[in-house]
Amino acid sequence: MASYIAEAGEFTRDTKYIETRITADGRDGYPVQPDRYRLIVARACPWANRAIIVRRLLGLESALSIGFCGPTHDERSWTFDLDTGGVDPVLQIPRLQDAYFKRFPDYPKGITVPAIVDVPTGAVVTNDFAQMTLDLSTEWTPHHRDGAPQLYPDSLRDEIDDVNKRVYSEINNGVYRSGFAGSQGAYDAAYDRLFTALDWVSERLEKQRYLVGETITEADVRLFTTFARFDPVYHGHFKCNRSKLSEMPVLWAYARDLFQTPGFGDTVDFVQIKQHYYIVHADINPTGIVPKGPDLADWLTPHGREALDGKPFGNGTPPGPTLDVERVPAGHGPVGVR
Amino acid sequence: MASYIAEAGEFTRDTKYIETRITADGRDGYPVQPDRYRLIVARACPWANRAIIVRRLLGLESALSIGFCGPTHDERSWTFDLDTGGVDPVLQIPRLQDAYFKRFPDYPKGITVPAIVDVPTGAVVTNDFAQMTLDLSTEWTPHHRDGAPQLYPDSLRDEIDDVNKRVYSEINNGVYRSGFAGSQGAYDAAYDRLFTALDWVSERLEKQRYLVGETITEADVRLFTTFARFDPVYHGHFKCNRSKLSEMPVLWAYARDLFQTPGFGDTVDFVQIKQHYYIVHADINPTGIVPKGPDLADWLTPHGREALDGKPFGNGTPPGPTLDVERVPAGHGPVGVR
Repeated sequence: MASYIAEAGEFTRDTKYIETRITADGRDGYPVQPDRYRLIVARACPWANRAIIVRRLLGLESALSIGFCGPTHDERSWTFDLDTGGVDPVLQIPRLQDAYFKRFPDYPKGITVPAIVDVPTGAVVTNDFAQMTLDLSTEWTPHHRDGAPQLYPDSLRDEIDDVNKRVYSEINNGVYRSGFAGSQGAYDAAYDRLFTALDWVSERLEKQRYLVGETITEADVRLFTTFARFDPVYHGHFKCNRSKLSEMPVLWAYARDLFQTPGFGDTVDFVQIKQHYYIVHADINPTGIVPKGPDLADWLTPHGREALDGKPFGNGTPPGPTLDVERVPAGHGPVGVR
Repeated sequence: MASYIAEAGEFTRDTKYIETRITADGRDGYPVQPDRYRLIVARACPWANRAIIVRRLLGLESALSIGFCGPTHDERSWTFDLDTGGVDPVLQIPRLQDAYFKRFPDYPKGITVPAIVDVPTGAVVTNDFAQMTLDLSTEWTPHHRDGAPQLYPDSLRDEIDDVNKRVYSEINNGVYRSGFAGSQGAYDAAYDRLFTALDWVSERLEKQRYLVGETITEADVRLFTTFARFDPVYHGHFKCNRSKLSEMPVLWAYARDLFQTPGFGDTVDFVQIKQHYYIVHADINPTGIVPKGPDLADWLTPHGREALDGKPFGNGTPPGPTLDVERVPAGHGPVGVR
């Protein structure tokens, strides 16, 4: 996501994305089709991390390929610097902006991940991160794996939407509002809003294992990606420091429960996460030095949340092991992370 | 203390101070004399905080007056911006540098606190913070209060010196080496050195209540002032973030024990501490925004260290209440701090 410090006052995220949708009926010109599209992500980015998790939970690996940008980027966008030759092996482009410009030659807005690219034309279809994961759940159904969870079930949509709305404005985006505040007053207000919301969600999760219903849903995915970055980045870099996540017992247990659920923690690259924020945001970390801490081994400790009602996959099953080529590098997880 | 980011590599502190001493025999021209000198401090500064604590523990308030600079300063030095009219009521100067220039008109080095000024001439005598507190203990003895502790007893000096040496280079200064590192490599090395030393001191304090001997000494004073700043500042601002102090059980209990001992915690102004570091170090916090966290109420929780051998004041007594005019403002302590 593009980002900046608000020159004065409150940080406001530009929320206008390319709204074209890939749907079963193809009404926007882009029908769901296996082997046609490529999901472009960066492991560092919380908004992209959602799509990585949902794709894996649903078992869409063989229907929708994935390309990984490196953790840092310059003002000219995310690059494929992790790939051999610095070029995405499928799209054959060095910079994600090339796919944006293929569709909109004068695209004036931020080049963001996640984005889905139409491989035959090389043009971006959508970067609307909020709609994207919902569509993976509801439009791509024929391509889901056996035993895939229902992350956005009909019967719970209203409640999920309500929770997501507050989680987005107060937590997912709330940490950025704190970190990119342009004045002390704006920061103070952002900090209060954020921790008020964390107290709310902590209370909600005290007696129920998941945010909505008895199984993991889209709502959990969205909260999780912010939580995975909380202690490594938001606590210090964004000054969200009333306490660490690991000092909030309910939320810390909830976050570890998800982390240890196949499809969540195995997508998290703490090394890339820290590099991204601390190197890209030169406005708030001009030295570019990336902290060595925190110690993250505790992500793997018992969380005790099984005692609550709820089963992560309901009557379904967890996803199998991550594909070799998509695995988070050794040493980038909670053990041995630097 | 003057400070800067090392342009490349490791931060090195300039340790050459004005070495003139105030002694019982007056051999440097400045004999110990009540009502003659004025100790100039800033509550924010850890090196000055030592002198505030030692003066109070020894009951030197009536023999040696004290002046407080504000928490922030510009390149032209600490100012008396907290005083009416912005002028120290005794020295009648707006900036500490005026006292330095009175003694050395071309004084080329940093204008630092703590400093002791000779009131009749208005000239600084010394800013040698390490020697200063030892001299308060050993040269000012006739003016100590009844029941004052021996902070630098003859029989323990070698051991105190040894501990102080390592605590200074690895911890007191180690946090700055981490925060002002000019390269990733220098930072990484500084972080490792710091936490190696914290592990050492944690092991040392596991079975003994104080660093050296059975009572508080100069060694505890020196470690304490770094610990008081660890979670509010060094953890985030200086990237000393393997864990918070509050996550290191032995050190956290030790720090709280001292905090709750009269003469220690009652000198700590968390508001000024945070303002100082986050506002003065524009090189590493260009927005100047001061974090609201962390929650500091836990400084007052039971620490359980009484179970170990040792009594803070030995056969002596704790100091009485802080003088009204020298009290840390309400809301700047662990309760209600912002």
